[in-house]
Amino acid sequence: MKYISLLGATGSIGIQTLDVIRNNPDKFKLLAISAGENIELVRKIIAEFKPEFVSVQYKDDFDKLKTEYPKEITFGYGSSGLMETAVYHKSDVLLNAVIGSVGLNPTLQAIREKKTIALANKETLVTAGHLVMSLAKENHVPIIPVDSEHSAIYQCLQGEKWTSVKRLIITASGGSFRDYKREELKNVTLEQALNHPNWSMGSKITIDSATMMNKGLEVIEAHWLFDKPYENIDVLLHRESIIHSMVEYDDSSIIAQLGTPDMRVPIQYALTYPERCHYQTDNRLDLAKIGQLHFEEMDFERFRCLEFAYEAGKAGGTLPTVLNAANEVAVHAFLSGKISFLSIEDLIENALARHTIINNPDLDTIQEVDSETRGFVNSLV
Amino acid sequence: MKYISLLGATGSIGIQTLDVIRNNPDKFKLLAISAGENIELVRKIIAEFKPEFVSVQYKDDFDKLKTEYPKEITFGYGSSGLMETAVYHKSDVLLNAVIGSVGLNPTLQAIREKKTIALANKETLVTAGHLVMSLAKENHVPIIPVDSEHSAIYQCLQGEKWTSVKRLIITASGGSFRDYKREELKNVTLEQALNHPNWSMGSKITIDSATMMNKGLEVIEAHWLFDKPYENIDVLLHRESIIHSMVEYDDSSIIAQLGTPDMRVPIQYALTYPERCHYQTDNRLDLAKIGQLHFEEMDFERFRCLEFAYEAGKAGGTLPTVLNAANEVAVHAFLSGKISFLSIEDLIENALARHTIINNPDLDTIQEVDSETRGFVNSLV
Repeated sequence: MKYISLLGATGSIGIQTLDVIRNNPDKFKLLAISAGENIELVRKIIAEFKPEFVSVQYKDDFDKLKTEYPKEITFGYGSSGLMETAVYHKSDVLLNAVIGSVGLNPTLQAIREKKTIALANKETLVTAGHLVMSLAKENHVPIIPVDSEHSAIYQCLQGEKWTSVKRLIITASGGSFRDYKREELKNVTLEQALNHPNWSMGSKITIDSATMMNKGLEVIEAHWLFDKPYENIDVLLHRESIIHSMVEYDDSSIIAQLGTPDMRVPIQYALTYPERCHYQTDNRLDLAKIGQLHFEEMDFERFRCLEFAYEAGKAGGTLPTVLNAANEVAVHAFLSGKISFLSIEDLIENALARHTIINNPDLDTIQEVDSETRGFVNSLV
Repeated sequence: MKYISLLGATGSIGIQTLDVIRNNPDKFKLLAISAGENIELVRKIIAEFKPEFVSVQYKDDFDKLKTEYPKEITFGYGSSGLMETAVYHKSDVLLNAVIGSVGLNPTLQAIREKKTIALANKETLVTAGHLVMSLAKENHVPIIPVDSEHSAIYQCLQGEKWTSVKRLIITASGGSFRDYKREELKNVTLEQALNHPNWSMGSKITIDSATMMNKGLEVIEAHWLFDKPYENIDVLLHRESIIHSMVEYDDSSIIAQLGTPDMRVPIQYALTYPERCHYQTDNRLDLAKIGQLHFEEMDFERFRCLEFAYEAGKAGGTLPTVLNAANEVAVHAFLSGKISFLSIEDLIENALARHTIINNPDLDTIQEVDSETRGFVNSLV
């Protein structure tokens, strides 16, 4: 039995993690969750999974829930509640599925407490990959990726020597606007942007997919997870999202992981690793039925955010923190209807251009730069 | 340094094995070879690789070569020479690249002598898989496949538990006549049949690819190599031969091995396993350049030999021996211009229909059935 803490239980990945736990009651027990403001869903999760610790975003909700469940559950709220969930003493595994760099501190603390980390929160690695990975190494804690692309690469690396890896190939569906010309992006709406062709995901990552920043964040995430230079991490446009990613070895062999787009598969893999277990689905991959898989070179002029991410990643230091913070604020502004789609990349470009890189930043520096960048981008919105 | 015995050095796989050895002089040393009647090529191999033992098919050639190289090389010929090559005392690895069930005895003997087996001779497993695999298990000898499909599956199984495997998916290019209707196969010529679209291979396997018997033999080979029932081994038409084969796991994940069609890659993998090493090529796989991969259901009515192979494999006992022997004779007759293309499958069907299966056959029984089947099919040609 694995005992699980789940950050972001009411988000898209959180809900699918609950599906995986529900389907494997002999393997997993949910002990602690954090949630946002969807208290109705929190009540349902409590009724079904009976967690021992529950944290929510706001104090009001915390007070309310405490009165409702006075005995059996301990509650928390805000960033301290997030932290308590992450390091809940009886848990073996932290599945971190919050959105944004708010996931960083709880991850670091859980690593110190020797929890296995199942990481769906890519911003954690983008903003402070060097801190997370070196702390994990020091504490002999595995960081198991949950993102479908990184889970694919992780699977393709099993039984192989990492020194034999020549290249990581991250596939990209192309997002909502993959068939749009640059000119056509000027007038796209929020509704169009939220309509991802292959994956059912939260709104932040769906917009990141449309700008291709999601792929950029994944490139930086892959750099940290798999310890490979950016020159050896490629992105390949693959509209069907069937090949989730690939690893090319020195001998020119490529190992790929394929499947129907379904986040529950990489979530389950992260939780059962190094084992696999049966996954019940009526929708197993049938390549004959799909008939064709398509591949194209990535267009870095059309997808400028991807270029920004490679540049920030290669420059290193605090620049990826700026990239991530600017992107979080800009996407939030777009989701709130305050700016146009193409303004997202303009805001990020501005933030990157004005920043003076600080090398080997510690946690305080990262948090200062993060906060300063958010202030700057917000002032432009 | 790995010391290598090579059976079938002047055939297609043999010559490509020599390329691999030539390109890795720090890793491999060729000690013993067997060849057929291409003595000119044998002389070149001797000049370049300086093997210690050389066996040829005919006594005349043996006598000639003995006079030419009186001191430095020991020679052999015929089936005893094949055997001596396979078990050459200083060799660690036997790469078996002969064609047909003639490869069986040397393989068994090399297993007894604890040589690692790199197996390109699929007929060995088709005709006597139960004997080969149980002897290998008894002697703790690894059987590493060289066939691109089986090498792909072997690679996709690394780091995984075999009990988690749900299904093996062997891809098939479709061979020379993949776009022909059944009706059109009546009048195809030998020249057309020898024109394989993707792979450069010997004539026997090229004809086997055109009849799809090659895929049938591979299904039986996979059954023995990977210990999976026939119900869990599927064949998928994939005309580009880029995905060399796949493994589907219990959790619905599929792991695939991809690459440009080039037999030197699986040959090198079999020789370096469990390591990989650099492979120099200007032709690494570029999926964006290829653009599309296609997949189709296999048509068992159009490709009757594949159906025969599944039936023979499932029935077991001596029936796969009959399948293989009848096929060898029929293909030889087609290559000699004695019969038409579709007669190949008629001859095999006849041989299968008249045979009474003997279960758990020993080596003598297999060799009797093999010889008896050859006699029968030859009498019909």
